Amino acid sequence: MKEMILMTPGPTMVPEDVKKVAGAQPLHHRTEDFYELFSNLNKNLKEIFKTKNEVITLTSSGTGGMEAVIANLFSTGDKVLVASIGYFGERFYDIARAYGLDAELQDFGWGNAVDLDVLEDKLKNGNYKALLVTHNETSTGVTNNVKEIAKIANKYGVAIVVDAVSSLGGIPLEMDEWGIDAVITCSQKCLMSPPGLSFVALSERAWKMAETSNLPKYYFSLKKAREGVLKPNPDTPATPAVSTIMAVAKATNMLLELGLDNVYKRQAEYGKRVREYIKSLGLELLPEEKIASDLITAIKVPEKYKASEIISHMKEKHGVLITGGQGPLKGKIIRIGHMGYVTEKMLTKTLEALKDAIDKEG
Amino acid sequence: MKEMILMTPGPTMVPEDVKKVAGAQPLHHRTEDFYELFSNLNKNLKEIFKTKNEVITLTSSGTGGMEAVIANLFSTGDKVLVASIGYFGERFYDIARAYGLDAELQDFGWGNAVDLDVLEDKLKNGNYKALLVTHNETSTGVTNNVKEIAKIANKYGVAIVVDAVSSLGGIPLEMDEWGIDAVITCSQKCLMSPPGLSFVALSERAWKMAETSNLPKYYFSLKKAREGVLKPNPDTPATPAVSTIMAVAKATNMLLELGLDNVYKRQAEYGKRVREYIKSLGLELLPEEKIASDLITAIKVPEKYKASEIISHMKEKHGVLITGGQGPLKGKIIRIGHMGYVTEKMLTKTLEALKDAIDKEG
Repeated sequence: MKEMILMTPGPTMVPEDVKKVAGAQPLHHRTEDFYELFSNLNKNLKEIFKTKNEVITLTSSGTGGMEAVIANLFSTGDKVLVASIGYFGERFYDIARAYGLDAELQDFGWGNAVDLDVLEDKLKNGNYKALLVTHNETSTGVTNNVKEIAKIANKYGVAIVVDAVSSLGGIPLEMDEWGIDAVITCSQKCLMSPPGLSFVALSERAWKMAETSNLPKYYFSLKKAREGVLKPNPDTPATPAVSTIMAVAKATNMLLELGLDNVYKRQAEYGKRVREYIKSLGLELLPEEKIASDLITAIKVPEKYKASEIISHMKEKHGVLITGGQGPLKGKIIRIGHMGYVTEKMLTKTLEALKDAIDKEG
Repeated sequence: MKEMILMTPGPTMVPEDVKKVAGAQPLHHRTEDFYELFSNLNKNLKEIFKTKNEVITLTSSGTGGMEAVIANLFSTGDKVLVASIGYFGERFYDIARAYGLDAELQDFGWGNAVDLDVLEDKLKNGNYKALLVTHNETSTGVTNNVKEIAKIANKYGVAIVVDAVSSLGGIPLEMDEWGIDAVITCSQKCLMSPPGLSFVALSERAWKMAETSNLPKYYFSLKKAREGVLKPNPDTPATPAVSTIMAVAKATNMLLELGLDNVYKRQAEYGKRVREYIKSLGLELLPEEKIASDLITAIKVPEKYKASEIISHMKEKHGVLITGGQGPLKGKIIRIGHMGYVTEKMLTKTLEALKDAIDKEG
């Protein structure tokens, strides 16, 4: 099985040192060694989330983390607004509906960002308990201005829940400073680790909301998980994905050694470089450039090409894996992920492979 | 960090070849390589579950798998009986209660097995929709006679859900043959892999029950997961723990190459050997020998010893990790796990370490 360069929305590339840890014998989760490692991970995560509150580690994908927030913060019939700009906004709406919330979908359109004026108008008059929003929409390569969105939510006393599954640790997000009530992320995007863990942090207001929530939860009980984190020997209610915890502890050490600001800067450079390059090839971005993500670039496929053929060519000939569009964008776009562990060499190879595919298939 | 020999109820030891896979770059989960691997895993799991129905892979611990079964099969107020013989029976009851079932706890006592006559009496008169039961109770080292329990449940038309988290792949369980409606297991016990995945199989009757369930689920929707498994290119609704799937695919290949009957035989020998040895040391089993588990042995700690000191001695001096008791058995027992990947050498070392601890600490 030939190893691919994964330039996708995740799983992303895992650095050698992190893979080594992931492939070690898992620690037992009721031992001093684990307590120390888990403590260190929590400390790292708080720095990355930019919060003074505890970060909860769940053995699940990012979707599980999103569900945990819904199940813990809300009660049947709670009115929430989901500001959607693509696939993962719609997923958040689906989860809220599955749990019996009175959820309203405000669809800003695939390829757009949240329109702040429209949002303000909704929040002013809607009597919503919370706003659910995606930070970085991987289905369209768009980043929402979460800082301004949070400002509006706070202005009207609406709690704000941010799906930062593909953004945290890659682009700035200041949970406490921006007044965000819940942030969710996972192991396999900007955190440079194998998939299998999600991470959730709540504000004090959100922990209060959790006290009155009537929705069923056991595995995803954030209160019970927080009790574990707060122990002198911190642990988890059930056996966690210890190997992946070991991997993320290592990966977050690496990120913090590099410095978050340096990571943000490098991601911004990568984003700019990819956008310039695709324009130089005569290709067009899906979103307007000012809202384009620095973590993943969505590119319109001109009529004369087939998305699937560009993707296969890059994969078969160059060993570089990119992805196509989802839902209404299937066949219409290709997406290059450049989040997490991406070296200059990987990025250069990807752009050259794209050029070659365009030249050959056009 | 010194690597321990884990003789615990899990995480258990992971063979070198499985660790190698777990530490490789995760595949992308929407690629041919993954589809092939996931297909192979499903085939292996069906052989190990002894079922013709699909086995669902969830990114969660075993507790998540137990919750998935509750959330998918039942509706608010459904009357179920939980036949508990220890910590994990009580957990099943707690999950059922958290989901609003009319759950009744029939506690057979920590250290006992389910009494078949008492059970029959309950099921005959109780009008239960389902019986929830633990196959192998790791908290007490007791194995229930699930074959006979299932016979009784089927006699009275009560669906039977079996927590086989610590038993499947280690001791016989014939899902279809014995008429079991739901079986749950996970990656880090007898399946010799890192923690992070649970596996659930349902009978046709259980899939029918799932059609009318009104409990909220999204991440744990078994119907949606089955749609993924049944695709020509089988996949999962959200990004799964790909590395762990790669590991379990490898580990289940190894188990099936060895032959399940040989695995069962070896486990039975290990169980017997541990029991004989502890008796030769003058120690006493917690349960009666006829219900003692071949996967984990619970040993009463005589007054003159301290459980914690035996455990530390074995850990510090011999690098062998065993565990103490939970709940009412804390400080009263020690437990040696001998499930999953255990070599003759590991077992011998463990027994010698125990003898040394007994000699030194007594």
